[in-house]
Amino acid sequence: MTVFEDLESEVRSYCRNWPVVFDTAKGSRLTDVDGNVYLDFFGGAGALNYGHNPEALKKPLLDYMARDGITHGLDMYTVAKGEFLHTFQDKILAPRGLEYKVQFPGPTGANAVESALKLARKISGKEAMINFTNAFHGMTLGALSVTGNSMKRTGAGIPLVHATPMPYDNYFDGKMPDFMWFEKLLGDSGSGLNDPAAVIVETVQGEGGLNPARIEWLQGLDDLCKRKGLLLIVDDVQMGIGRTGPFFSFEIAGIKPDIVCISKSISGYGLPMALVLIKPEHDIWGPGEHNGTFRGNNPAFVTAAAAINEYWSDDALEKSTIAKGERVEEAFNKIAHDTPSTEMFAKGRGLARGLQFENAELGDKVAGEAFQRRLLLETAGPSDEVLKVLCPLTTTDDELDEGLAIIAESVRAATGS
Amino acid sequence: MTVFEDLESEVRSYCRNWPVVFDTAKGSRLTDVDGNVYLDFFGGAGALNYGHNPEALKKPLLDYMARDGITHGLDMYTVAKGEFLHTFQDKILAPRGLEYKVQFPGPTGANAVESALKLARKISGKEAMINFTNAFHGMTLGALSVTGNSMKRTGAGIPLVHATPMPYDNYFDGKMPDFMWFEKLLGDSGSGLNDPAAVIVETVQGEGGLNPARIEWLQGLDDLCKRKGLLLIVDDVQMGIGRTGPFFSFEIAGIKPDIVCISKSISGYGLPMALVLIKPEHDIWGPGEHNGTFRGNNPAFVTAAAAINEYWSDDALEKSTIAKGERVEEAFNKIAHDTPSTEMFAKGRGLARGLQFENAELGDKVAGEAFQRRLLLETAGPSDEVLKVLCPLTTTDDELDEGLAIIAESVRAATGS
Amino acid sequence: MTVFEDLESEVRSYCRNWPVVFDTAKGSRLTDVDGNVYLDFFGGAGALNYGHNPEALKKPLLDYMARDGITHGLDMYTVAKGEFLHTFQDKILAPRGLEYKVQFPGPTGANAVESALKLARKISGKEAMINFTNAFHGMTLGALSVTGNSMKRTGAGIPLVHATPMPYDNYFDGKMPDFMWFEKLLGDSGSGLNDPAAVIVETVQGEGGLNPARIEWLQGLDDLCKRKGLLLIVDDVQMGIGRTGPFFSFEIAGIKPDIVCISKSISGYGLPMALVLIKPEHDIWGPGEHNGTFRGNNPAFVTAAAAINEYWSDDALEKSTIAKGERVEEAFNKIAHDTPSTEMFAKGRGLARGLQFENAELGDKVAGEAFQRRLLLETAGPSDEVLKVLCPLTTTDDELDEGLAIIAESVRAATGS
Amino acid sequence: MTVFEDLESEVRSYCRNWPVVFDTAKGSRLTDVDGNVYLDFFGGAGALNYGHNPEALKKPLLDYMARDGITHGLDMYTVAKGEFLHTFQDKILAPRGLEYKVQFPGPTGANAVESALKLARKISGKEAMINFTNAFHGMTLGALSVTGNSMKRTGAGIPLVHATPMPYDNYFDGKMPDFMWFEKLLGDSGSGLNDPAAVIVETVQGEGGLNPARIEWLQGLDDLCKRKGLLLIVDDVQMGIGRTGPFFSFEIAGIKPDIVCISKSISGYGLPMALVLIKPEHDIWGPGEHNGTFRGNNPAFVTAAAAINEYWSDDALEKSTIAKGERVEEAFNKIAHDTPSTEMFAKGRGLARGLQFENAELGDKVAGEAFQRRLLLETAGPSDEVLKVLCPLTTTDDELDEGLAIIAESVRAATGS
Repeated sequence: MTVFEDLESEVRSYCRNWPVVFDTAKGSRLTDVDGNVYLDFFGGAGALNYGHNPEALKKPLLDYMARDGITHGLDMYTVAKGEFLHTFQDKILAPRGLEYKVQFPGPTGANAVESALKLARKISGKEAMINFTNAFHGMTLGALSVTGNSMKRTGAGIPLVHATPMPYDNYFDGKMPDFMWFEKLLGDSGSGLNDPAAVIVETVQGEGGLNPARIEWLQGLDDLCKRKGLLLIVDDVQMGIGRTGPFFSFEIAGIKPDIVCISKSISGYGLPMALVLIKPEHDIWGPGEHNGTFRGNNPAFVTAAAAINEYWSDDALEKSTIAKGERVEEAFNKIAHDTPSTEMFAKGRGLARGLQFENAELGDKVAGEAFQRRLLLETAGPSDEVLKVLCPLTTTDDELDEGLAIIAESVRAATGS
Repeated sequence: MTVFEDLESEVRSYCRNWPVVFDTAKGSRLTDVDGNVYLDFFGGAGALNYGHNPEALKKPLLDYMARDGITHGLDMYTVAKGEFLHTFQDKILAPRGLEYKVQFPGPTGANAVESALKLARKISGKEAMINFTNAFHGMTLGALSVTGNSMKRTGAGIPLVHATPMPYDNYFDGKMPDFMWFEKLLGDSGSGLNDPAAVIVETVQGEGGLNPARIEWLQGLDDLCKRKGLLLIVDDVQMGIGRTGPFFSFEIAGIKPDIVCISKSISGYGLPMALVLIKPEHDIWGPGEHNGTFRGNNPAFVTAAAAINEYWSDDALEKSTIAKGERVEEAFNKIAHDTPSTEMFAKGRGLARGLQFENAELGDKVAGEAFQRRLLLETAGPSDEVLKVLCPLTTTDDELDEGLAIIAESVRAATGS
Repeated sequence: MTVFEDLESEVRSYCRNWPVVFDTAKGSRLTDVDGNVYLDFFGGAGALNYGHNPEALKKPLLDYMARDGITHGLDMYTVAKGEFLHTFQDKILAPRGLEYKVQFPGPTGANAVESALKLARKISGKEAMINFTNAFHGMTLGALSVTGNSMKRTGAGIPLVHATPMPYDNYFDGKMPDFMWFEKLLGDSGSGLNDPAAVIVETVQGEGGLNPARIEWLQGLDDLCKRKGLLLIVDDVQMGIGRTGPFFSFEIAGIKPDIVCISKSISGYGLPMALVLIKPEHDIWGPGEHNGTFRGNNPAFVTAAAAINEYWSDDALEKSTIAKGERVEEAFNKIAHDTPSTEMFAKGRGLARGLQFENAELGDKVAGEAFQRRLLLETAGPSDEVLKVLCPLTTTDDELDEGLAIIAESVRAATGS
Repeated sequence: MTVFEDLESEVRSYCRNWPVVFDTAKGSRLTDVDGNVYLDFFGGAGALNYGHNPEALKKPLLDYMARDGITHGLDMYTVAKGEFLHTFQDKILAPRGLEYKVQFPGPTGANAVESALKLARKISGKEAMINFTNAFHGMTLGALSVTGNSMKRTGAGIPLVHATPMPYDNYFDGKMPDFMWFEKLLGDSGSGLNDPAAVIVETVQGEGGLNPARIEWLQGLDDLCKRKGLLLIVDDVQMGIGRTGPFFSFEIAGIKPDIVCISKSISGYGLPMALVLIKPEHDIWGPGEHNGTFRGNNPAFVTAAAAINEYWSDDALEKSTIAKGERVEEAFNKIAHDTPSTEMFAKGRGLARGLQFENAELGDKVAGEAFQRRLLLETAGPSDEVLKVLCPLTTTDDELDEGLAIIAESVRAATGS
């Protein structure tokens, strides 16, 4: 481990809480160099919805690489890309009645967000953006400007100035009608709000603390955008690809965003890949107006197509995700009930679940106890006050129970109850 | 091909000039679905310095994946990352007398640049940046703000305002002393130049038109930065990893930049990966202050370590790159000489080579003719007036001659001479 | 009048509604070149609180100029400035228990605001500002950035980006607790609100539509600023100098802002003059850090001192202003009551009074009718929906009744009732 | 004097060097409270081109005020404004073949500059501005953004980002062809220069150090703007109204700027007043798009009209200014010649004259010595290294000789020679 401490920048973070060296991984398990096995409830921060190195994807991937399928293809037409597009169209877009053009930006969520913001500005001719309290959209300058976390924002080193935050759903515990402030500002030519190009939103805020927006709120936002002529961008980087149940997290609200950002689990194998989905009428990009060296990561296209075929040919995964999510919620409620000495409550949707502690310090403490018990877990929220479960959707019921039991123990250990 | 035209966004670019569907690739050759074989002088825009799917890297990669080595590791300590760091330290940094901490940003060059700019602002407490005419550093908002191309800049949709361009080497064909303007501005408290945090520079401008900065100019810039207290950032994303001969393109000047951005060919296999190298005294990042989901792309670490072992254990590649570069230059000079009807001249360094046409339209025309002859080539420069050769460094002499012959033919065809 | 239409820029505005050429003015009356006399309820947009050319100020002014008292003094020490400072300290600051250092910025309200914003940024080391919906602070770039009106903001031609608007008092008709949104944003490190340097506020919004903030709201704002470490800037350019009754409009709330902007009626004679009042501990300006050619308009200092002596040696003006304000309010209520066909209501404080029409078009229509009857009146509010009374505080009761009668007639004429 | 030290902000500046209290002023003389008389070579920083309280203007001013001519007229049509416009058109614009619409912005130079920048952005639809090294245009945020001085820029407290400085004439002592850099940037779509709306320039930089631009340079700039479609804004706030000889300083170059900013000496009596002159085709302001309370300072219109009649009905003032300017230059050359121990040289045009010291500290030292001898003088340039003469144009030859003799003595005293 010395090599990391000697050579790696101080910017490293997760590894500080998990000071072991991992070697192999499969499904929901990681194994370190000493042969210790860990249960993974972090799931690559949402990038491993099908678990580590899923067998159904591994074979096509190895076959592709073995036969020297093109690896790096810039934005050239390739067989692998074509197959992904076909599969994505046939199995994902068409059945959901969604019409989108597909952009391959640089292979990260931040890059998808950067593209979406650029395109929204081009479409509208406006500069201002609306984001939401506790939003997280990425760390490059454009994505950071619509992100809420003050520590991360300060890191920009320049004032981040083109976005105005609006209250996310439930920010006032229901004490303020939805969009009252936002709509008043938009309707008042003296409000001082710069006329916005677009609204960027997560349907469930992951980094922000596993805050789910209600269906009515999402519908209300969609309706507001339509009435006021604002573009609606859904950042589905973390909540898409089945994390909350359906493939796209916004399906439950029956809305069709103008632009959708996709990344993390889209390749299915943890490989870097990202998409921007654009309503055809908004696809006004000029050729090469946004580009990047790694937007043609063909091994990722191979696994992405395989993953869709494997997991999205029926609704089994969606249903099991919802069921497992409820199982987590129940377990969290039980933990809360069994620990009267400390206030805590369950949050989230699907398998994006949080356990929020009134006492913010408990978040990291519980995660630390869990790691002692070989469960990988992270925290979220502005003060890391939410224990976050983003386990693979393919986590078995037994694994789920195992992990939940460790969490219960860890809470007991951390709270001394 | 219909699937691409139907489903892919209008933003796609290279594929418009090369309307075939590629399937496999090896070394300097690509094969399309119809079995046609193409010689690749584009080299993944600099991401394929060792060619497509190099055998020496393929085996470790397939082995790693077959044994379920961890694929997606966020910023966790892993065996693959540790081996990369060891190898990088032992074979690259130490022999060159370079001391750097290594940051793994998101796996793209733009992300490395975004990190470098943030860090430079944090170190200096200043906001302004100095970039150079015809610079290219990436398409996310921070990287774009230090990029020169006006079409790409306009795409930002907001004013890009924190950088001031200075003349790159030879911008005035030697008519103006190096840094006269830059140094005058810095030394004049009434100049109106915002006090800069850092200078970001490419040693050879690739996208800008294959413009090489002279050694003395790079040394002068380094000296100026030292005297004025500016941080020096070298963006070695395209010119690093041997493209100009040595591993780092700045080695020939004997300078040690404060921050170095690395990406493209670092994985050696075309897999997404990027590094930021930071002088130890400047590594003042807070944990997680810049992060990203795909900064632990472990298959890329495996090939990156293998590539260093394979290609950088001695100076053979460096020498052959320089020799091949001269061969390209000679061929270009001969083409220029043989085509008196049109003004053109050779540019570049190592195997980053350009043939600039007085008549800008010839760039795309010649590239088009080359494609007809199954040679993949792109153009560079503000008006696409430079034919660009970024062939794999492993291109054989025969392949080189084959490609150069096609270029000569294509120039003849395009100029009707 | 041809000369104006031929030579003056299209930017001219009030004159378009009052197409006559004025010659002389005294008290609350103006006379045009044809000898027609107009009653002035506009009062120089708040710059003529003591009426036109008040006799008590005219003599010292003419004496000063006749004896060649220095007219233009930059920021030199002058007898006239010294006397103003003495008088201001003795008659205004000391009796109110206020300790302020006095800055003489350029002689306009916008310049006072620009100074205040700069100073607040210097004190706090922060860039962001909080302003309020429907605020108006001036037309230069800094002042405009904290102004609400979208037409005026658009005029900037660049994005105005460093201020975030908060809801002004009563923005939601009491449906939302005061500062609920503002305080939540400040207390949430993930809110995305840039950490603000200061809050800038008007106690009654004049241009915004004669919106008075309640005493409790002002106190709550002051308290919030103290608790959160924000500087409080009161822009008293239009509402100061007795417009709402007391000399400073914020006196009624018992608060002591960190910085106060003063202009308009401070000279008392309509001469350009402005002040920035700064708590001594915040007076960290460097010499000349903000300057301007006309900050030593000495004739204005002469009339300003005379005005203070004349009008602020006792509380007679304050009391009569409050009484007259109530008289206006009653008259407005009566008009509203007598015009059941149209919704309207009275607003304001002291002699800053508005009559707001549900039907926004009535604002200009009534003002037009009033002008036909030789009463000068303007409108305010984002849609000019508020008839605005800013008559001189020295308007006699008879003049007040005369003007109010004309307003009543004009409403009848405009509404056809 | 205690009152100033006790009550006035630390921002005060000139008064620190001249710690006396002035009372009256006439022509080129000021008198302090102790009866000491000072010769004024500072001239209100260019606001007193006709000296203090000129008799020819004083009578119309007192008459106007005595008969209660309207003082504060916002932007209403008034007799005084009409007469000023007639006079300005007949005596200034028409004889010079200039066609301009006249805007009355707020009564300061900074406000005129703010208006000009806004209008240029509106006309062009672009945001970026070109300014010049060592430019000074004012202290409000827009004006400051095109100003060079780093101390003043830092005072903004936010990054000033929309302007890019170009080298002013002679910035490289003739070693670089005029506009080589500027034109190269404009012509290179990869230069990274944001496409500019306009160029703002002073024909002689006053605050910047009395740097005169050559006629050919001004013509070259005008030509460049025309060829490249940039608007040309001349800031004639300090150099206009005869300071360099002709009424407009740009007349000598035979150019007709798109927009001209005027202030300082336009009222002729040191009263706040400013103009923006706009080519008719560019007068696309909407009504009230830029406004301000004191843009109708009618006493200033009275003196402005009187001043034009008095001083610009023939070319006597222009000729005498040029002659006196040469007299100053000769005297400076003689001082330089007589003081071989220290390097210094004369600069400027007309009666905007500077004596620049190699040893920057001498500037303030000589000015201090001059004050001991009752001559008021200030310094200019980024390090206050230039002694600045902006005496009234009406300074008599005897007064001029008297002041120049004091300067010679002061240089001797300061240099110990």
